[in-house]
Amino acid sequence: MSVSHLQHTAFASLTPLIQPRSVAVVGASSDPHRIGGRPIAYMLRNGFTGRILPVNPNRTEIQGLPAYASVDALPEAPDVAIIAVPAPQVLETVQALGRKGARSAIVFSSGFSEVGEEGVAMQDAIVEAARVANMRLLGPNALGVFNANLGYYAFFSTSLERGIPLAGRVGIATQSGAYGAHLLGLSRQRGLGTPICVATGNEADVTLGDAIGWLVESPEVDVVMAYAESIRNVDSFLAALEAAHRAGKPVILHKVGRSELGGRAAMSHTASLAGDDKVLDAVLADYAVVRARTTEELVDIAYLATQRIYPVNNSLGMITVSGGAGIIVSDAAEDVGLPMPPMPEAAQARLKQRLHYASPLNPVDCTAQALNDLSLVHDFTESMVVDGGYRSLIAFFTQAGTAASIGPRLAEQFARIKVDHPDRLFVVSVMGEGEELAPYQKAGFALFEDPTRAVRAIQAMGQLGEAFARPLRRIPVPGGVELPASTPGEAEAKQLLARAGIESAPERVLKSAAEAAAFAEQIGFPVVLKIASADILHKSEIGGVLLNVNSAQAVRDGYSLLLERAAEHAPNARFDGVLVARQLQGGVECFMGIQRDPQFGPVAVFGLGGIFVEVLKDVVFRRCPFGVDEAEQMIRSIKGAPLLLGARGRPVTDIKALSRVLSQLSQFAAEAGPRLRSVDLNPVFAMPEGQGAWAADAVLEVEEVAHGAES
Amino acid sequence: MSVSHLQHTAFASLTPLIQPRSVAVVGASSDPHRIGGRPIAYMLRNGFTGRILPVNPNRTEIQGLPAYASVDALPEAPDVAIIAVPAPQVLETVQALGRKGARSAIVFSSGFSEVGEEGVAMQDAIVEAARVANMRLLGPNALGVFNANLGYYAFFSTSLERGIPLAGRVGIATQSGAYGAHLLGLSRQRGLGTPICVATGNEADVTLGDAIGWLVESPEVDVVMAYAESIRNVDSFLAALEAAHRAGKPVILHKVGRSELGGRAAMSHTASLAGDDKVLDAVLADYAVVRARTTEELVDIAYLATQRIYPVNNSLGMITVSGGAGIIVSDAAEDVGLPMPPMPEAAQARLKQRLHYASPLNPVDCTAQALNDLSLVHDFTESMVVDGGYRSLIAFFTQAGTAASIGPRLAEQFARIKVDHPDRLFVVSVMGEGEELAPYQKAGFALFEDPTRAVRAIQAMGQLGEAFARPLRRIPVPGGVELPASTPGEAEAKQLLARAGIESAPERVLKSAAEAAAFAEQIGFPVVLKIASADILHKSEIGGVLLNVNSAQAVRDGYSLLLERAAEHAPNARFDGVLVARQLQGGVECFMGIQRDPQFGPVAVFGLGGIFVEVLKDVVFRRCPFGVDEAEQMIRSIKGAPLLLGARGRPVTDIKALSRVLSQLSQFAAEAGPRLRSVDLNPVFAMPEGQGAWAADAVLEVEEVAHGAES
Repeated sequence: MSVSHLQHTAFASLTPLIQPRSVAVVGASSDPHRIGGRPIAYMLRNGFTGRILPVNPNRTEIQGLPAYASVDALPEAPDVAIIAVPAPQVLETVQALGRKGARSAIVFSSGFSEVGEEGVAMQDAIVEAARVANMRLLGPNALGVFNANLGYYAFFSTSLERGIPLAGRVGIATQSGAYGAHLLGLSRQRGLGTPICVATGNEADVTLGDAIGWLVESPEVDVVMAYAESIRNVDSFLAALEAAHRAGKPVILHKVGRSELGGRAAMSHTASLAGDDKVLDAVLADYAVVRARTTEELVDIAYLATQRIYPVNNSLGMITVSGGAGIIVSDAAEDVGLPMPPMPEAAQARLKQRLHYASPLNPVDCTAQALNDLSLVHDFTESMVVDGGYRSLIAFFTQAGTAASIGPRLAEQFARIKVDHPDRLFVVSVMGEGEELAPYQKAGFALFEDPTRAVRAIQAMGQLGEAFARPLRRIPVPGGVELPASTPGEAEAKQLLARAGIESAPERVLKSAAEAAAFAEQIGFPVVLKIASADILHKSEIGGVLLNVNSAQAVRDGYSLLLERAAEHAPNARFDGVLVARQLQGGVECFMGIQRDPQFGPVAVFGLGGIFVEVLKDVVFRRCPFGVDEAEQMIRSIKGAPLLLGARGRPVTDIKALSRVLSQLSQFAAEAGPRLRSVDLNPVFAMPEGQGAWAADAVLEVEEVAHGAES
Repeated sequence: MSVSHLQHTAFASLTPLIQPRSVAVVGASSDPHRIGGRPIAYMLRNGFTGRILPVNPNRTEIQGLPAYASVDALPEAPDVAIIAVPAPQVLETVQALGRKGARSAIVFSSGFSEVGEEGVAMQDAIVEAARVANMRLLGPNALGVFNANLGYYAFFSTSLERGIPLAGRVGIATQSGAYGAHLLGLSRQRGLGTPICVATGNEADVTLGDAIGWLVESPEVDVVMAYAESIRNVDSFLAALEAAHRAGKPVILHKVGRSELGGRAAMSHTASLAGDDKVLDAVLADYAVVRARTTEELVDIAYLATQRIYPVNNSLGMITVSGGAGIIVSDAAEDVGLPMPPMPEAAQARLKQRLHYASPLNPVDCTAQALNDLSLVHDFTESMVVDGGYRSLIAFFTQAGTAASIGPRLAEQFARIKVDHPDRLFVVSVMGEGEELAPYQKAGFALFEDPTRAVRAIQAMGQLGEAFARPLRRIPVPGGVELPASTPGEAEAKQLLARAGIESAPERVLKSAAEAAAFAEQIGFPVVLKIASADILHKSEIGGVLLNVNSAQAVRDGYSLLLERAAEHAPNARFDGVLVARQLQGGVECFMGIQRDPQFGPVAVFGLGGIFVEVLKDVVFRRCPFGVDEAEQMIRSIKGAPLLLGARGRPVTDIKALSRVLSQLSQFAAEAGPRLRSVDLNPVFAMPEGQGAWAADAVLEVEEVAHGAES
């Protein structure tokens, strides 16, 4: 199988847009409160390091800068041009910028695809004009870009009047300008530095993926916060996630619109089981991306990610002055699946000896007693790191931790541990403001007033750690599977799958007792014998089906018996022989399928059969292809998995074989290419351990080859 | 059935503790930083309206107040005495206070039940001393009580040094002092006034329920926040919840330790299915209590509850300047099950006419355009109230809503709506600080910076609205069911249940064809006929079982046939007749049970049978007894409910009959009293509509009557 990594080299082409040396402003205004004036005012106020070139036909000076009458009159080709003119004038402006040699443009103007048909046509025209001129284009209907490290603000949000972004290393990529501005405000409140923000608007050219990709490749960014309503360009999005993985930088994604999935709750068949949102989750599972469920989570996780500690095999230890807070954190850790193993018993005994009142299990409750001797807090925490081996720590000291008499000395104790064990993720949970927090901030601690919120963020850091440790998946180029010209029948579908290693329950019509017995020996006992005759419909009514046939001799006897019964009950029927089939008894019915997602290509789905898939929607998705280990992970992740694993005295099924089939199906789908619309293997029997997994039915849907396509 | 409401009149006995006229401090200290000095200092600083009576054998004056050498030397019997002496001296202090006629005591001292056996004995002794003297006792090991409205601080937390609680009407009852102090800090940050707080410590006498009960009966409290690690006294707790319901005041409860339930994940039978935590939820469902999952939720919900608007048939309308925020809120509303129905079409058309850019569905996106004409925001919101009929509203204006040029005018527009429609719950979501928020605060709006968090709180208000609208359940006094002296066999169990209206699938052994036919007609067709003979074990192998017998004639014929077969195959066997049984075909196997919770009495559990209960734990609990409607709600609430409701072409089952059986089982359990340990009806067949629900097996566990108990 030929394999290629997605290579998307377009990110560098955004540099003139995000890191320009010169900025033209077409539609520049002298009024710093108007859209065409605000960016100039922001840049002047914040000392933009490059040249600002206002364009206004009616003025020779704008906000103290020389103004140019037209794009043509500009003294140089700008790296970027802000376009703040009415929609109908945007096209000619883009064309003029193209002629001038501008490298990129930002269209603030609205009135394009977001308002309907006519707008779409105008938008297409400006994109084409930009493409011809080899310019990247942000927007239209975009709030713009800023790069505070340069004092560059091609951004017309009034929110900047409330204060410019804090210094820091978190980049923002957002499809919504209004939400982006909200996020900036929240970040500032949280003390999170967000020097670069790209708001993509209608995404006529530059997409969210482009912005994320540029940000993760920037040496000035460690973490990216992203807000998406839909992934409009999957290639650039996935290329950006690959780039992020390569760079070891996490992307914290808030993809909204989960409830759209809810709206499609009336799922009735495989096709609609693969709702966009679950598919997106299945795709994201391969990358170093954390999906935030809420804005609060987005900011919390990004904030903690700036520590740049992404633990593998994450576990949480907590030292606390409140038993109650310890229980609350334990609840929260269980909710998100973050392990909180107990301290080793010997260590517990030592802590208990040191402080009789302590509860040393984990959470380690050192009680308010420990505040009288803070070296004790140090030693307890040190023991948690060394003896407990926790990758992540929360220290809950609430208001005691910010009391003037305690705070600075406590911070000092913790700082010693942070210096000695820089690989541990260490969150301090205290309540306070301003100077009260300074000792902890100076020592570089992540601060969470609410330890519950810290738990989710810590769990996310572990998720990122696992993702960075995993090599990026290899997406094969389709090939190696020859699909028929149109949707095949069941037999052909089974043959096609069999060539890919996905075996149906073996069955064959045989014309002699000896052949039947030999085939049965080959496929294994027990077998089912059935009269094979197109003329006899209700075989069981005439005794034409024999179950539990357990030996070669029994097959030979059965063959004769069926021959007799056919002759007796239907003397005129054509007798084609006897069908010998592997009898799938004691197996668990599963369901496997492939659904082609319009964005992400083939996606595999697995679940238990019947009510599990139909009523409970207990299914798992993953983007194709994937290996046997991933398949096994999928299988074990469903709620009904205990049924496959021997719950309540059931036989343990052949999970290895089942995983192999699922993985092979995913390979098959990836190699088959875009003409493969869907596959349904329903049921697949997961047999008792060692007896394999067999598809009992296969439906394969193929896009018909267009008439004359061969020409 | 005799019925009594829980009546707990003890709450008033806490008045001297929470609202005293005089406070003795035994172990009073001149040092305002010591435990025995801090309450005095706090009370002096905050102008306690009553008398402070320090007791100290070594001083005549404490912090400027005359001090008394002993309890006996006190000039009066105090309403409350703070006890801040070492544990071994507490008993004699309590005894002295009793002699003096003190009405209550607060034991700050630790070293009691929390440190083990010896402590337990000391604790029992002080409780007994208090009981004899008719004193209520808070603690030991309690942080204490404060009532800021009186300047009363029998509370030794240093957190008060960071500022006294804000004025307001939210009471706090907490088992943990440290967590209570943390909660106070968070409340102050949130602008939430918490004038009264009771921290119950070891709860030797006064329990969390007592504290909640007193608070809900206080005219100075509208809402109670409660923190619990375990419910130590169920009677006072439930009595408090009844009192809260009567008073129309909500209790927001953070009961921690959910993960203990997780620890018991290896549930193997009914007994352990009823984990404490799920049972607690089942009990709370009857009252006007909201259970907060996190501290953040606790404060958010209490904050919104101070609006005192508890909608029935809650629904959410959102007006927003950001489409993104609209999607985020829609996601959040779906997550918590809060309906966001669309605006009526005619109203949508009107809004669209008024503002072309608007997206009028719900969320109603008025876009930043609306900021140019704020009357438009008013009219849109008014239309949402009047035309949309939403009971709850969120207005999302983030930083625009606090811009100096917009905030005060926007608040004015919203305030008009609040005045015109005081029954609507109206949350404003803006980002800002201090004076920026004042216009909204003055108009009485609830403010949430994060609209996602507002959604959960709004949903909770609806939950409270429904709870207040529901009459309180009536808990019957046991009686009316005579249990056998010990655990009965299946037949006796079925008879017992049948008398309570819970019918097993009817079956009877009959000795003639005519009787068999008559019985079959009585129980309905189809029936199963079986040879009744203790000597014939494998009846089906000799054709001794007939299925699908569909008429009286067929029963008669079948009777003869079975007689023949018995004679033919087992001529020496004793023939007892033919068992005629209702054939339960096409039914869905369910599971019902009763488990006696040590705290809450009998709790019913319902689920689908087999894997649903065993593997998926798809079960629902409710405290007994409950009516048919509640039973139906339970049945419809499980994930597998579609299997009962005709999913995917299945027959709709007789939900009414199933609900009746479940409700009757709950009545039976309630009437049976504490000797009934458990009931298992497994399976219960839910037959197709109109054909009833039948228990196929019944196991009833009864506590054996103690030998000689009759004497």
